[in-house]
Amino acid sequence: MEKNMITIAHGSGGTATSKLIEQIFKKHFCNDILSQGDDSARLDIGDARNLVFTTDSFVVTPIFFNGGNIGKLAVCGTVNDLATSGAKPLYLSCGFIIEEGFDIEELERIVEAMGATAKECGVKIVTGDTKVVQKGAADKVFINTSGIGILPDGVNISGRNAKVGDKIIISGTIGDHGSSIFLERESIGFNANIKSDCAPLSGMVQDILSVVPEVHVLRDPTRGGVATTLNEIAVQSNVSILIREDSLPVKREVQGVCELLGMDPLYMANEGKMLCFVGEDKADTVLEALRNNKYGKDARIIGEVTEEGQPKVLLKALSGGSRIISVLAGDQLPRIC
Amino acid sequence: MEKNMITIAHGSGGTATSKLIEQIFKKHFCNDILSQGDDSARLDIGDARNLVFTTDSFVVTPIFFNGGNIGKLAVCGTVNDLATSGAKPLYLSCGFIIEEGFDIEELERIVEAMGATAKECGVKIVTGDTKVVQKGAADKVFINTSGIGILPDGVNISGRNAKVGDKIIISGTIGDHGSSIFLERESIGFNANIKSDCAPLSGMVQDILSVVPEVHVLRDPTRGGVATTLNEIAVQSNVSILIREDSLPVKREVQGVCELLGMDPLYMANEGKMLCFVGEDKADTVLEALRNNKYGKDARIIGEVTEEGQPKVLLKALSGGSRIISVLAGDQLPRIC
Repeated sequence: MEKNMITIAHGSGGTATSKLIEQIFKKHFCNDILSQGDDSARLDIGDARNLVFTTDSFVVTPIFFNGGNIGKLAVCGTVNDLATSGAKPLYLSCGFIIEEGFDIEELERIVEAMGATAKECGVKIVTGDTKVVQKGAADKVFINTSGIGILPDGVNISGRNAKVGDKIIISGTIGDHGSSIFLERESIGFNANIKSDCAPLSGMVQDILSVVPEVHVLRDPTRGGVATTLNEIAVQSNVSILIREDSLPVKREVQGVCELLGMDPLYMANEGKMLCFVGEDKADTVLEALRNNKYGKDARIIGEVTEEGQPKVLLKALSGGSRIISVLAGDQLPRIC
Repeated sequence: MEKNMITIAHGSGGTATSKLIEQIFKKHFCNDILSQGDDSARLDIGDARNLVFTTDSFVVTPIFFNGGNIGKLAVCGTVNDLATSGAKPLYLSCGFIIEEGFDIEELERIVEAMGATAKECGVKIVTGDTKVVQKGAADKVFINTSGIGILPDGVNISGRNAKVGDKIIISGTIGDHGSSIFLERESIGFNANIKSDCAPLSGMVQDILSVVPEVHVLRDPTRGGVATTLNEIAVQSNVSILIREDSLPVKREVQGVCELLGMDPLYMANEGKMLCFVGEDKADTVLEALRNNKYGKDARIIGEVTEEGQPKVLLKALSGGSRIISVLAGDQLPRIC
């Protein structure tokens, strides 16, 4: 029985650690750089001058959910953070913290999903680390992924670049990931089949940038949802933003769950969506590029940047009135990612 | 009281998270790149073509110990992994997983140590992430640091480069970190003042490489200690290694604790030591460079690479006999780093 469980020895840096690396990690992350076997990976980045670098730890519960698992999420989350800068993601690291007694078969399913997702977006997982803590000192498994991407010359995408007149586009329906995790966790007697939107968006971003390199802002609305992300951008760019409730794409099941629970899809996490700010004259071209990508079929314009100064986000409600949408203050749902 | 504790809201990505970033992280990690506020950091790496990239998660317990804390360790560990490749460490990421209820003042002491250590070795902490899990889902705080360094042209240091005739140098006394953590954790009625050797070694490595760029192997003997690290190198380079017990620098208190507990300093973790393999003709120059650095005062030659093939590590014991020193099989001491 013990052979199918993670033991403290798997985190010792000795024989058991080496076996785990050979039999699980190298098998699914297979690439020439990882195989070097030194404590750090050497990367030839050619004549790139500008890199982007990001990190995220993943503590989602449950670790397997409708539409993905913590491993797929860990690759998507970091790839998407790189993609929002306009960079092409190239290399990932992964750091595992595993609770003693964790099922090695479950670990392999997680690692397999990481390998497959990395392959889909052409990134290599080149360096890693495994720690094991005693039973009760962590909840199953936590994963950190850090990522490096290369920024093409001339690309200048940042939350500080929103401009008055910019159209704001969302690449698809909102709140899917948050609602899916909620349904997995709680028995609310609501039998909806809501799948997390967890997806790597670097290909979709490249599709946009190949036709409209002048995109101003890209950001993935994860924790805190679209409302929080738009507020961050409003502050960074010192602008007011208006979005229209009747333009927000929300799946009927997601709307249903949110209504039942008194939650707002605008604050629900997404893990496969992108917000894009672009000059009005380019908005249709971006929309078309998005809709031609499998992850952007439901892309829509949801609002615009209305004025400089007084950073805020206004929602024009279905009822006709407007109200200020602020940053998420508490936490609707812990451990969503 | 609540204001001094980490709450679930600090991990929400909303207001509380922003405050934590402003008041704790930005205060101690202060640099122009971190201040950009986007999801990934942009790095200008000039005309570098070769990067090194590494990651480590830190789960040490206790989080504060004689000679350091988990934050200092998290910076040293990753800086040292970069340094062992011969690279100049430049940028770090940090990912925190914090247990709900954790004392914010303790968090600040940890973050402060990270900032000070990063400053000492001239690296910038440029991107980060904070997750909070419910009480009981993690043990206080775990930290991942990933790092990027630039490899100068012509440097070729790897565990695969050990050559017959190479002298093996250790930069100082062994087993200090492991013994120190052990003493912190266990009441063994042994009143020794053993300080962890936790230190950033990038400056010391630069000192060596500035006089002897032809170093073959550098590696920091952390988890599994000198014995495990030498075995890894023996396998990577397919060579046999001989070390002499009477050459191993071990502090008297460390030796005492190890004898009392039936442990071997060769397997105890170090967090501020470097193993260096170099051609015999350069060994004295490396030794001198090491001894002129504050972290290398006790540097000594402990053995040599004896033959090709049949990777193994032999210890010539004080008694005169020789025995094979294998990789750490179980785990002497979990959560040492």
